[in-house]
Amino acid sequence: MARVTTTTPRIRLSPDERRSQLLDLGVRLLATRSLDELSIDLLAEEAGISRGLMYHYFGNKQGFYEAVVQHAADELYACTAPPAEGEPLERLLGSLTGYVDYVLANHTGYRSLVKAATAGNDNLRAIYDTTFAALADRFFTVDPGGLAIPDTPAVRLLIHAWQAMVEDLVLTWCDSPAGLTKDDLLQVITTSLPALIDTLP
Amino acid sequence: MARVTTTTPRIRLSPDERRSQLLDLGVRLLATRSLDELSIDLLAEEAGISRGLMYHYFGNKQGFYEAVVQHAADELYACTAPPAEGEPLERLLGSLTGYVDYVLANHTGYRSLVKAATAGNDNLRAIYDTTFAALADRFFTVDPGGLAIPDTPAVRLLIHAWQAMVEDLVLTWCDSPAGLTKDDLLQVITTSLPALIDTLP
Repeated sequence: MARVTTTTPRIRLSPDERRSQLLDLGVRLLATRSLDELSIDLLAEEAGISRGLMYHYFGNKQGFYEAVVQHAADELYACTAPPAEGEPLERLLGSLTGYVDYVLANHTGYRSLVKAATAGNDNLRAIYDTTFAALADRFFTVDPGGLAIPDTPAVRLLIHAWQAMVEDLVLTWCDSPAGLTKDDLLQVITTSLPALIDTLP
Repeated sequence: MARVTTTTPRIRLSPDERRSQLLDLGVRLLATRSLDELSIDLLAEEAGISRGLMYHYFGNKQGFYEAVVQHAADELYACTAPPAEGEPLERLLGSLTGYVDYVLANHTGYRSLVKAATAGNDNLRAIYDTTFAALADRFFTVDPGGLAIPDTPAVRLLIHAWQAMVEDLVLTWCDSPAGLTKDDLLQVITTSLPALIDTLP
């Protein structure tokens, strides 16, 4: 009997899978908490593992924060994938719907990430900047079937500013919707991109 | 002779005038420095007064920073006063020219103020928010002869987001103009406001 038990294969997660599971949990905890409120201790407790094992997976506190923020950024990128087909503006609308839903579901954590990136932690800022640059890249390289906009430095400059506007608009709207439904908000942020690019001389 | 000297009136600044002079100097120093680099010691040295007198005027370090930032915000508000006459879009262009010139002249300090406001110092954030709310108010109360836009919560929400966009655009452009002249930049930020409001359902 003992022999049968020991030969039954145990499902063991690889270290990478275990780490990824911990990051999923970290991002879930971040949905309703700021980055400051998410500690190695809290995650260790929620995951039922020792602090020592947490340090084994993440090196140190800073490495832990960066890994969680990078995981959240990857999730944001995945959530905003445009639908494979449709008119350019419909596809942009689909992508932005993913963004608004993501911010709605992760409001507290998202706001604290923006703050951490702006406050000048260089590594968190780099993750933030790289993520938004990748989102901008979608218009040109990853998703050339989308909006027909020329890939020029001036257009890139405007997309960067439009992203800042969308972020401000969505975060402010979450606090105080000003009579706009989610569909109204989506109409504004979707159609404002071509409208903004049209202002270029 | 001694009598003549003593009866010659000496020009003495009142404490308020002296404080205001120190704030002017603080804002000038901030043009090429971040807020972190502007210390009570530096301002005392540049003004040729004692640290003790600085504390007399500003209470403490935090009071000093708040007074300098408020003074800078008042200056920004004054610099962006729209011209008294002209077509609405011309008057907005005049106001925004003041804004761009202000940011160009005070690049380092302005960027550090935005960072300080976002990083969550509540008092600096309040000065920042109040200033931009006052700039938004100009469209409705102070300068009703300007753009004919309705004063609704949704329009206010959009103006807030447009301000975030303009700030990002101007600061990014200062670092890397992307082939846009200052006039091109001004055309984009001026005409983007009515274009953005037109996207409202």
